[in-house]
Amino acid sequence: MSLENIRIVMDQTYHPGNIGAAARAMKNMGLSSLYLINPRCFPDDEATSRAAGALDILENTTVVSSLDEAIEDCSLVIGTSARSRSFPRPVLSAKDSAAKLATEANQGPVALLFGRERMGLESKQLERCHFHTEIPANPDYPILNVSSAIQILCYEIWQYENGESLRVKEESEENVVYPSVKEVELFNQHLEETLRDTGFLNDIHQGEAMNRLIRLANRVRPEQKELRMLRGILNSIQEVAGKK
Amino acid sequence: MSLENIRIVMDQTYHPGNIGAAARAMKNMGLSSLYLINPRCFPDDEATSRAAGALDILENTTVVSSLDEAIEDCSLVIGTSARSRSFPRPVLSAKDSAAKLATEANQGPVALLFGRERMGLESKQLERCHFHTEIPANPDYPILNVSSAIQILCYEIWQYENGESLRVKEESEENVVYPSVKEVELFNQHLEETLRDTGFLNDIHQGEAMNRLIRLANRVRPEQKELRMLRGILNSIQEVAGKK
Repeated sequence: MSLENIRIVMDQTYHPGNIGAAARAMKNMGLSSLYLINPRCFPDDEATSRAAGALDILENTTVVSSLDEAIEDCSLVIGTSARSRSFPRPVLSAKDSAAKLATEANQGPVALLFGRERMGLESKQLERCHFHTEIPANPDYPILNVSSAIQILCYEIWQYENGESLRVKEESEENVVYPSVKEVELFNQHLEETLRDTGFLNDIHQGEAMNRLIRLANRVRPEQKELRMLRGILNSIQEVAGKK
Repeated sequence: MSLENIRIVMDQTYHPGNIGAAARAMKNMGLSSLYLINPRCFPDDEATSRAAGALDILENTTVVSSLDEAIEDCSLVIGTSARSRSFPRPVLSAKDSAAKLATEANQGPVALLFGRERMGLESKQLERCHFHTEIPANPDYPILNVSSAIQILCYEIWQYENGESLRVKEESEENVVYPSVKEVELFNQHLEETLRDTGFLNDIHQGEAMNRLIRLANRVRPEQKELRMLRGILNSIQEVAGKK
């Protein structure tokens, strides 16, 4: 069963009740892996009470202190967003996100990221995501409670895994191996180093150019094979630049 | 708009927080009509706090003392049930229930009925329903929190009313300028030339590597700005390779 590879990540949750409700929503839909980034209060009685029959999930919850720790071994990261921000990123429906997560979870851990109660995810966090997902809602009041949003996404995942009709499996995707967040980070470091060697990056405009490049790379989502080829190119550039 | 004719009915709710959460879930999905049959505590601070931006729904909630009063003007009543009981009754999926409710709401009030937190609906209440609906869930722990169940049904109703969930909005794309095919071709030529300069491409494996790179570039679909930046990188590489 691949559902255990689907990780729910909650950032800086303010109300512990929402953590309990999330655990219950997850267990109802067959998920079990919950990560909390710097929760305000956890463990907490309110979380325990709202979890009801899902205490096992709370007991096995992983508390971390940064987004990096929560996602570094994941090959796919989808972030939830109430509204599209200033920068472009593919937006998937809840249903399509569920399909993608369930499919890629066959190969290893994948993450679904939820922001703080009032603010949602920050731009910097959203930039770390391969896709954004948006739950369609009433424009007069589109802000769902975080555990309700988790409930809906988990429901769609369960439907996809167990539903009959909706199973449009992305078969062609099944054999593709994506690199982990960590591998991509190492690539980004290598890229930056190389661009410094060629003189393209200098201290003046370095920050912005690297951000653009990382955004571009995240959008393309290179496969593991492709990433290796790109690193080969970087090595060849460093050689002619006399740095290797 | 027919959504105002879809009535959520909660029977003998024990935790007032669930009433507030239900109101919020309803408003998020465009519903507004909430009926409570003999709630234990209402109004209540916990309900108010959990309702967040949906206080108007709590203020307009109708409290009644019997199921009859809650449904007597309705042409369709659907009851939620965790598991099918001893007597036969058609069971609809959440999605089919949503479609039925939204369709019949064009003609007048329809009701969706939720039981008490621990017990769900009693047999006598279920008998009053035209259909039952069951949210598919993990058989190890299928009992959803009542407001979570309301959230899922309301989500399916909103999805039905507002068309396919698959509306992949890439609104932010609107201001993006993409390069022409010609510009992309020139870029590909420049890339090939550069990779030859660094020695990465040689006559032996050149074809396959270039094909892979072009496929990758096509997938990413760089914007015009990004393509210019990439050409800047290529120039900087050619310079260190002593070819420019």
